[in-house]
Amino acid sequence: MPTSPVSRLTARIAEAAEPFIRFFNDYERNRAAAASHFSDFVAGNPQEPTIEGYGEAIQRHASSDDPRWFAYTMSDPGARAVAAASLNERLGSEFRPEDVVMTNAAMAGLAVTLRSVCDDGDEVVMVSPPHFLYEPMILAAGATSVRVRMREGDFDVDVDGIAGAITARTRAVIVNSPHNPTGRIYPPATLRRLADALTEGSRTNDRTIYLLSDEAYHRIVFDGNPFESPALHYPSSFLIYTYGKTLLTPGQRLGYIAVRPDMPNREDILQSLTVAQLVSGWAWPNALLQHALGDLELLTVDVGHLQERRDRMVAALRETGYDVHVPEATFYLLVRSPLEDDEKFTELLASHGVFVMPGRLLEAPGYFRISLTASDAMIDRSLPSFGEALAEAGDGAGG
Amino acid sequence: MPTSPVSRLTARIAEAAEPFIRFFNDYERNRAAAASHFSDFVAGNPQEPTIEGYGEAIQRHASSDDPRWFAYTMSDPGARAVAAASLNERLGSEFRPEDVVMTNAAMAGLAVTLRSVCDDGDEVVMVSPPHFLYEPMILAAGATSVRVRMREGDFDVDVDGIAGAITARTRAVIVNSPHNPTGRIYPPATLRRLADALTEGSRTNDRTIYLLSDEAYHRIVFDGNPFESPALHYPSSFLIYTYGKTLLTPGQRLGYIAVRPDMPNREDILQSLTVAQLVSGWAWPNALLQHALGDLELLTVDVGHLQERRDRMVAALRETGYDVHVPEATFYLLVRSPLEDDEKFTELLASHGVFVMPGRLLEAPGYFRISLTASDAMIDRSLPSFGEALAEAGDGAGG
Repeated sequence: MPTSPVSRLTARIAEAAEPFIRFFNDYERNRAAAASHFSDFVAGNPQEPTIEGYGEAIQRHASSDDPRWFAYTMSDPGARAVAAASLNERLGSEFRPEDVVMTNAAMAGLAVTLRSVCDDGDEVVMVSPPHFLYEPMILAAGATSVRVRMREGDFDVDVDGIAGAITARTRAVIVNSPHNPTGRIYPPATLRRLADALTEGSRTNDRTIYLLSDEAYHRIVFDGNPFESPALHYPSSFLIYTYGKTLLTPGQRLGYIAVRPDMPNREDILQSLTVAQLVSGWAWPNALLQHALGDLELLTVDVGHLQERRDRMVAALRETGYDVHVPEATFYLLVRSPLEDDEKFTELLASHGVFVMPGRLLEAPGYFRISLTASDAMIDRSLPSFGEALAEAGDGAGG
Repeated sequence: MPTSPVSRLTARIAEAAEPFIRFFNDYERNRAAAASHFSDFVAGNPQEPTIEGYGEAIQRHASSDDPRWFAYTMSDPGARAVAAASLNERLGSEFRPEDVVMTNAAMAGLAVTLRSVCDDGDEVVMVSPPHFLYEPMILAAGATSVRVRMREGDFDVDVDGIAGAITARTRAVIVNSPHNPTGRIYPPATLRRLADALTEGSRTNDRTIYLLSDEAYHRIVFDGNPFESPALHYPSSFLIYTYGKTLLTPGQRLGYIAVRPDMPNREDILQSLTVAQLVSGWAWPNALLQHALGDLELLTVDVGHLQERRDRMVAALRETGYDVHVPEATFYLLVRSPLEDDEKFTELLASHGVFVMPGRLLEAPGYFRISLTASDAMIDRSLPSFGEALAEAGDGAGG
């Protein structure tokens, strides 16, 4: 075997992540080249000043007479209590502060949980389209990923498909509700059937199949749609949350893993999470963010305004001739690409200063994704460009 | 093979980390029970109000008109430039901003670097006593740790021992200068010999052996002692730094990995670091800390005052009858335990409200460690207690 200057595993993960890394490099270059004449719909990133109250909350907790204010901080008891109370109020759950493990946002919550339960050779089932980092994080935990496609008709979880994908090596299933990029909230009947399938699979295997419930968007819900946590339907669940979406501050890493009080082998699980956080480079949030959580918990991006943007964009794009899906939740619109090659159409939009995410990168080929975190001015600027690009695509297709 | 509810690898790491986790749990309980009548010398944690200017620097950067202020942030160009300039001014090095990868402090820097270069079956050599997390992080990267004992006489690196420990599987060597817990700064002659040994080992193996240089304490230096970075003696080096010691804010995770401009396979290495940071749960520092780095870089714990404490503690403990080593740098004093069983003596001190770290935990059996980050009031309170504990140990030994 020839020598490699870097880890072979990391090199293999780099291959899986390469299209994304390349896309983001191109995007940054395009954005810089476009100066201010662009509309950025690419990611769930802020395009307007930070939400009101955020800076003040940080400032309020930036100093203290307590000598231990900025000492080594794992899960701060106050932050755990805030998180548990918030979950219980929103979900009707019964989490206690000691059931909450604070993490560097959802990414760390997922990475740490995967590392806590997976060994080499394990399989982790994920719904496709998945977040682009699921597979890299699964590989990093020594496991391999198994994709089960969402139902194309209604974007719901294909529970029969998941049941059929379970093998003796299956260690975990990751679901994301509300789902990025479809905006689908999985209905309670689906969650019950999913829980039954995991219970049955665990029994057959005589080994627990864990449910990782990525709920990054569970407060970004439109039309008063009800949300039920997948984690509340199955005891061996990890509920993973980040404040990065709700506060629209993804560069400030703050989130948690909530473990059900009735999680089997709870003490082993919690110890494993602690160890995984230690070896992942101290994956707890900064002390400052944990101190500020009581104040931050009260803040949120303006979901009503996001809903207005959704409605405006859906109407305008449909009027222009686009086929647009109406999301129940999340930041995203999924739009049919007028060209079969969605990357080509994405490049066409970019040439008009409109930056979107091509569906192929998201395992949603034939679509592109729009983030509603773009500013209203960006939306204004984009609408004529969407029309022009559509016309050019039609010319190209007909020519 | 019986099923396990958690990852077998994580469970194995938990065994390695268990003594430390148990010690810290006991310590927190003892500290809480002792209310305010105690002296805390256990860890490099703040025991006095946060250093002047820190809270203000945070407040100053807590808000901005820039919409992207708190957007997803990898290595911020401004922060990289500050870090590179600081290193070059202090070390006479020639790092460029693009050679610096910002990380969630030194722990993440080490974890990410190990993951970037190691594969299953690799060996990582470390100087004993090591930081308690080196071995867990090495295991997490799929590698195994190989200990080479420091020279007992002068606490220097045993370069011949390291050369002898190198096998075909050796992937990296970790050194920590200034060294915790001995306070030793490794001299240039040692670093040159170490570089020669690694060059020779890499040539023999036809595979690079990397040097991980953990320099958490390189600004906490006493008596104007000169410091040379081990990383400047060997091209295939990672210089790993944290602001957690300099600013005495270990709960605020801020640090970096600096990769030499002449690092062989530099592009592969940088890509591998990026991937490792992604899969470790987004191991970049919070946006806020990166924005504040220009201001934070100017601040430091009062090293002169730490040196006065060192001198006072060394003199007082020696007068009381203790055998104390004088450190050249770092936060720590290493003191001979009057009882052969240093954990027993540590418990005796704790019964007097004096909390220290037993040497056995640190791979320095027969010693205990004192952190000079204790307040002056704690030091005042502790001196009679140190005397009483010594007398009781003598009574016990004689009775």
